[in-house]
Amino acid sequence: MSEEAEKLQRPRSEALNEILGVPFKVLDDGFIRVVDYMGSDESIVQAARVSYGKGTKKVSEDRGLIRYLMRHHHTTPFEMCEIKFHVRVPMDCWRQWIRHRTANVNEYSTRYSIAIDTAQKTPANEWRLQASGNKQGSEGFINEEMGRKFTQREEELYQTSWKVYQERLEAGIAREQARKDLLLSTYTESYWKIDLHNLIHFLALRMDDHAQYEIRSYANTIGYEVLSKWCPFVWEAFLDYRFQSMAFSRLELDLMKVISGGKKKEAVELAIKYGWLSGEGNLKRNREREEFENKLQFLDIEAPWKELV
Amino acid sequence: MSEEAEKLQRPRSEALNEILGVPFKVLDDGFIRVVDYMGSDESIVQAARVSYGKGTKKVSEDRGLIRYLMRHHHTTPFEMCEIKFHVRVPMDCWRQWIRHRTANVNEYSTRYSIAIDTAQKTPANEWRLQASGNKQGSEGFINEEMGRKFTQREEELYQTSWKVYQERLEAGIAREQARKDLLLSTYTESYWKIDLHNLIHFLALRMDDHAQYEIRSYANTIGYEVLSKWCPFVWEAFLDYRFQSMAFSRLELDLMKVISGGKKKEAVELAIKYGWLSGEGNLKRNREREEFENKLQFLDIEAPWKELV
Amino acid sequence: MSEEAEKLQRPRSEALNEILGVPFKVLDDGFIRVVDYMGSDESIVQAARVSYGKGTKKVSEDRGLIRYLMRHHHTTPFEMCEIKFHVRVPMDCWRQWIRHRTANVNEYSTRYSIAIDTAQKTPANEWRLQASGNKQGSEGFINEEMGRKFTQREEELYQTSWKVYQERLEAGIAREQARKDLLLSTYTESYWKIDLHNLIHFLALRMDDHAQYEIRSYANTIGYEVLSKWCPFVWEAFLDYRFQSMAFSRLELDLMKVISGGKKKEAVELAIKYGWLSGEGNLKRNREREEFENKLQFLDIEAPWKELV
Amino acid sequence: MSEEAEKLQRPRSEALNEILGVPFKVLDDGFIRVVDYMGSDESIVQAARVSYGKGTKKVSEDRGLIRYLMRHHHTTPFEMCEIKFHVRVPMDCWRQWIRHRTANVNEYSTRYSIAIDTAQKTPANEWRLQASGNKQGSEGFINEEMGRKFTQREEELYQTSWKVYQERLEAGIAREQARKDLLLSTYTESYWKIDLHNLIHFLALRMDDHAQYEIRSYANTIGYEVLSKWCPFVWEAFLDYRFQSMAFSRLELDLMKVISGGKKKEAVELAIKYGWLSGEGNLKRNREREEFENKLQFLDIEAPWKELV
Repeated sequence: MSEEAEKLQRPRSEALNEILGVPFKVLDDGFIRVVDYMGSDESIVQAARVSYGKGTKKVSEDRGLIRYLMRHHHTTPFEMCEIKFHVRVPMDCWRQWIRHRTANVNEYSTRYSIAIDTAQKTPANEWRLQASGNKQGSEGFINEEMGRKFTQREEELYQTSWKVYQERLEAGIAREQARKDLLLSTYTESYWKIDLHNLIHFLALRMDDHAQYEIRSYANTIGYEVLSKWCPFVWEAFLDYRFQSMAFSRLELDLMKVISGGKKKEAVELAIKYGWLSGEGNLKRNREREEFENKLQFLDIEAPWKELV
Repeated sequence: MSEEAEKLQRPRSEALNEILGVPFKVLDDGFIRVVDYMGSDESIVQAARVSYGKGTKKVSEDRGLIRYLMRHHHTTPFEMCEIKFHVRVPMDCWRQWIRHRTANVNEYSTRYSIAIDTAQKTPANEWRLQASGNKQGSEGFINEEMGRKFTQREEELYQTSWKVYQERLEAGIAREQARKDLLLSTYTESYWKIDLHNLIHFLALRMDDHAQYEIRSYANTIGYEVLSKWCPFVWEAFLDYRFQSMAFSRLELDLMKVISGGKKKEAVELAIKYGWLSGEGNLKRNREREEFENKLQFLDIEAPWKELV
Repeated sequence: MSEEAEKLQRPRSEALNEILGVPFKVLDDGFIRVVDYMGSDESIVQAARVSYGKGTKKVSEDRGLIRYLMRHHHTTPFEMCEIKFHVRVPMDCWRQWIRHRTANVNEYSTRYSIAIDTAQKTPANEWRLQASGNKQGSEGFINEEMGRKFTQREEELYQTSWKVYQERLEAGIAREQARKDLLLSTYTESYWKIDLHNLIHFLALRMDDHAQYEIRSYANTIGYEVLSKWCPFVWEAFLDYRFQSMAFSRLELDLMKVISGGKKKEAVELAIKYGWLSGEGNLKRNREREEFENKLQFLDIEAPWKELV
Repeated sequence: MSEEAEKLQRPRSEALNEILGVPFKVLDDGFIRVVDYMGSDESIVQAARVSYGKGTKKVSEDRGLIRYLMRHHHTTPFEMCEIKFHVRVPMDCWRQWIRHRTANVNEYSTRYSIAIDTAQKTPANEWRLQASGNKQGSEGFINEEMGRKFTQREEELYQTSWKVYQERLEAGIAREQARKDLLLSTYTESYWKIDLHNLIHFLALRMDDHAQYEIRSYANTIGYEVLSKWCPFVWEAFLDYRFQSMAFSRLELDLMKVISGGKKKEAVELAIKYGWLSGEGNLKRNREREEFENKLQFLDIEAPWKELV
């Protein structure tokens, strides 16, 4: 088969080919790099058009079709693309990563081989404080002086744990058991292969503000450095229709209707009915009301109960 | 990135490239053809070696490693290869095919488009008879004269059903409803994408003698025409360690031990204990004993109870 | 273990117990019935609270927690519930159903047994017309007189195909082959087992207006007759946060902002920039603009370009 | 619905009910306990019989049918049973466990809550030595005197790492970050829900001699303490047809034929052809030959090349 013919059958992404095998650094000593891939924007269109059958004329431009598929959750054509990464990730972060079950994984085995002698170390100015409003989040940083202490303590702990590991190996203890007291911050490596539909799902969850900083760093690198090059139409549609979209619940929609009709009093009554405001219209904390207020603020609309405060 | 460098990152199979896009005919009007793929024998080795880490020397030749992985059910490296087919299959057969859940599918939509005007027709000499011993099998053929009658009847039925379909469409009935009385023998088309581990599982089940002739024809074509070219080491290992292997149960192993020690009487007693022979040593039908007898026969070993007959 | 203690360990839903095994009719001769289940609203809460650990006090009421989980796509606790149905469905509809891969299935085998002698027949007043705007939808009905003709034609076709099937069986043709020309409208039966997270996904897609009438009928029965009883909090949250929610894309949100600020001219300019309006502000058909107009209409907001018409 | 009727619809396992909620200790501070379940031996039979249709008489006894299904890899009826565990497992072991992707999981969150203050500690007499022949195994133990030293070192390391963790929390560092240097031996807890087919696969891999001691301990507890009570017929069939079965490859079968015919010379020639013996019949190490020799030994058959040594 000629080089020409092969291209037709096996669409490539020139921009992705440029970075094949090139590692993108993440965190202090982690990376992701693309090892192989299959498909492109084109393949999605090709798969979607199977549905239309031979006789059908080109319904719309490729970009338009991809945007339509993304907007309406027609997910199967995106499954026709596949990508394989080589990643280096702290085990602590890998614990979250591996929860995405619809992927293929070959991980570096510390049962077979000696562990990788590197761990994610936190610099003095990156120790994050517990978020006040969110039990599973962080906000702001500890002051650098204290940070220095914790950074040093971490380094010492790492040295101790690695020494213990080495002593065990030297005494002939089995690798599978010697590893048991490695720190969660130790790096591991994996081949990670996933289809584009599930990659998008991974990015939607892990690029999100609520994702932990570490895995978010990996997701952002995959999104902005890889997907944007591999399937530019998909990337754009992902940002427009998923990542930067906003969902309104039935309750919120009903309230929006009343608000856009200018009926403030009815809006307050509805919010009371929802339990978002107390009977007297008091603004005690209510999570769902606050989420709605954030959405209104984003739209430059004033909450009808603001003056109640 | 140079063509050279790309090859390193993205292993190809020259033999598979030769047949990219080329349809292989199956049944009277079906086909399979490879649309795209990712990986090769090499990628499996590459993935398996992630486990051994950087410092490890080449443990064994590629072929040997692949055979080892197959023999010991180390399945994850095989998941690192992926292949995409375009297939045309009778709906009746597709009903079995689609039960393999770990694949990605885009099927031709008869909701969106007019159905494909072709069905699998059975020639006069291919009407199979119900198997006597196996409720879900067939054996032998009906005589050709009767076969001709059934072939003609099938053609008439197809014409009638297609006419009904056409009349509905012409009267403006929705495609999604008009299709409801198409025959199961009508062909459908799909893009079908699957990783190599799951493809092997598909082949092991569907190339098997007990699989229905129709889907077996597709599986054989995929195995002998595609996999054998794509990943020749995997194909060879699959035949040696899975497809042409044989499992012996705990019961069978215990019997084999006694038989290979030449202790016929003990063997008969054991078989009676298993319930494979009646107390008096009578040879009434017993499915599990018969399965074991077939295995013995394959090994040119005489069943110790043969003389009892 | 006492009956009392067992209840604690194995939460039941009294309302669901009432209908265990009871078939709910769907279409002319189909049904769904619950055969078994595991879990309840309570189990979801129990699973979610594993995260909080022993020392944590009851964060919120069960209902509130379930609503929070649904709103924020915390899907894993819903996977802790499981339900098993026995269903009878036309094969044509089953072809769509089976595409939901994350379920367990045992289907009636027409390879092993004789097919079920019943097919979904369409009454004279239920032949649907092809939708004009939607290639894969229907709207309105054909007139009843013509409908009668099609209903009769369908009955004849069914009789013919069933007769052909019978003749084949009588001549000894294998069941696996004899079935090949059954009509797609023939009923099949299955055991179908799925976890609650995936059931919700099934319902979201199949209760939707765009789902085909037939499968929508099954989905509605499962939703309104079963899920509403089994896990009433989940059902309510599903309706509020998924089924009756509405998503706005980044483009729509940006437009909403401008519109809610009363800046009509800017809104029109933005829509032109999006390609939703032609440069001259002409209202030629644009799918995405029309989708947005529908959302605005739902919210009782006038599209800023309405006066352009 | 009466208690009686409910039992019919929702088969229970009395023996399993006895241990619902009861923790079985594993390792020094781990456990597994059954929280809920669905189905029993009976449900498998019920599902398998869907295939046979209404008119079919009871083909065989339940036990026989289950054994048949297991023997012939008819896996879907086993998927009709589901079980939910609450487990406490060292994170190091959980890393292996979680690789089984077809399960539902809710894990204790150290992002949300403070980590569980207990880790798996190795007693002085349980430090295992690296296996000589198997890069990923262990054999024998280190002498107890040295063991005491390693046990003490481990305890000190744990205390240090826990103190560092506590200091971070006290300084207000976010839980999601404070946890990064916990030891892999720290216990975690999860709800783990899986269907019976996939549980069997888990047991087959993890009860195996080659599985690491720690996860094997969990698998054995689940097998011998839970599955044996829940579905006794399945457990028996699993042991007979999977766990204690043995597979022979095409190469091994061909050799067995020659050996059982008493043709030693041909056997040696075949082994040379396979590359299992060097051309001169030398017995240098060959992994596949050694595996075959182990099988022959199990069957009390002498390897035909033994006298060559």
